[in-house]
Amino acid sequence: MAFLRYAMFLCLVSMVFCQENMDVEFDLLPRPLIIEYPETRFKNMTEELLMQCTSWRVAVESNNLGPWITIPTECADYVEEYMSGRAYDFDLQTVSKEARVYAKSLELGDDGMDAWVFDVDETLLSNLPYYSDHGFGLEVFDCAQFDRWVVEGVAPVIKPSLKLYEEVSSLGFKIMLLTGRSEDKRNATATNLINAGIDEWDKLILRSESDQGKSAVAFKSEKRKEITDEGYRIIGNYGDQWSDLVGTSVASRSFKLSNPMYHIP
Amino acid sequence: MAFLRYAMFLCLVSMVFCQENMDVEFDLLPRPLIIEYPETRFKNMTEELLMQCTSWRVAVESNNLGPWITIPTECADYVEEYMSGRAYDFDLQTVSKEARVYAKSLELGDDGMDAWVFDVDETLLSNLPYYSDHGFGLEVFDCAQFDRWVVEGVAPVIKPSLKLYEEVSSLGFKIMLLTGRSEDKRNATATNLINAGIDEWDKLILRSESDQGKSAVAFKSEKRKEITDEGYRIIGNYGDQWSDLVGTSVASRSFKLSNPMYHIP
Repeated sequence: MAFLRYAMFLCLVSMVFCQENMDVEFDLLPRPLIIEYPETRFKNMTEELLMQCTSWRVAVESNNLGPWITIPTECADYVEEYMSGRAYDFDLQTVSKEARVYAKSLELGDDGMDAWVFDVDETLLSNLPYYSDHGFGLEVFDCAQFDRWVVEGVAPVIKPSLKLYEEVSSLGFKIMLLTGRSEDKRNATATNLINAGIDEWDKLILRSESDQGKSAVAFKSEKRKEITDEGYRIIGNYGDQWSDLVGTSVASRSFKLSNPMYHIP
Repeated sequence: MAFLRYAMFLCLVSMVFCQENMDVEFDLLPRPLIIEYPETRFKNMTEELLMQCTSWRVAVESNNLGPWITIPTECADYVEEYMSGRAYDFDLQTVSKEARVYAKSLELGDDGMDAWVFDVDETLLSNLPYYSDHGFGLEVFDCAQFDRWVVEGVAPVIKPSLKLYEEVSSLGFKIMLLTGRSEDKRNATATNLINAGIDEWDKLILRSESDQGKSAVAFKSEKRKEITDEGYRIIGNYGDQWSDLVGTSVASRSFKLSNPMYHIP
């Protein structure tokens, strides 16, 4: 029975696909039939769930959500497929391209005080190898485990961000790396960045002892203020969290990279 | 020949769908097969284009794009299907729900000075009937034509926004309607709002003669400053354009409603 059905199926497939030029009016279903089946993304999700999780992701990206601890359970497969498939990379490229167009459109001052701020995690370096072992944001963040990953210093570079970094460096922007990582990760972070191709910067700012306990918005706003107090103009800011970008002493223009895995307030 | 193929197809379909409980291992393709075919959304787009236009839309919603005049030509079908289908409404509901949770979580002052700001177009009132006749953002915006639509005063309410309006009104927030429409549209706008169920407000602020030519960010920042100078605290702000929300005198929390049809700087 199974063989018969298999044979009939193959027969049908060959007829459907091989006889496009015959005298056929066989449009019971929209054509082409199987070619449009979304094979690469979200293949096991209902339309309803796909819509729901996309809506949640857009709400994350447009800063509409309050603090959240983990991704919605029902969106676990969605986030995994988004991060592992081409869509995440596509989104990163879209933002990188826009930021490069912006950077190139500007006329820099002669004083060398035009600065571009970059966040590190999920901005220049990808922790996807770590998060793929931890449910892509479905597990509650474990600081100790994540720290062990950070000190390994093997996070791969995010290529569209590397491209922007190279562009703004060559244009003459001062590079300010501003990360929520703590000061004791300086060596691991610097080594990781250099190995990943981010090999020069003007400042690498991490959380010192006195910054512990501050929100990311407060910490990063303070550090941006210190940068501008030194006379720099923050022309661009590039980060995956809204807390990298908002607050005070904000950049002339900020770019939000996609990250549906975690939220830092 | 066509009849034979038709018969074989029906035969196959009935076998595939009616014999789930038989001794079958027939998983050549992921199951269920046709049920998951995305019938309602984006059915004529390739995966590549779907990814590209979704990426563009997310970039719009996360404020990553510079000024744009019309939607990308290749995304015309995408935007039409998004706006006409369930996804747009789903997204509006997601934001409305989040805003209502936020509003209800707050303890209002006793002085009656807690305010909630609403934009009008694509926030409280929908111009979808107009834009559906004008390519959903594919045509360059025509001020005179749009004005004729506005004075008709028949724009339908956006239901999830009405729900939020009712919620924040009943909680005791002062309602501030802040729109880029010009002062000569006051009567048409007020009548339209009342007929749509938005029947009370504390201020309806439109562009006066002296506001003409100002960017939306500048105009709305100034008007928010006037509101806060009167002693009000702007607790929430609800709009479909980033220019409704950013600038100075911003709300404690802002909510960005989806709008991939047009951009107001």
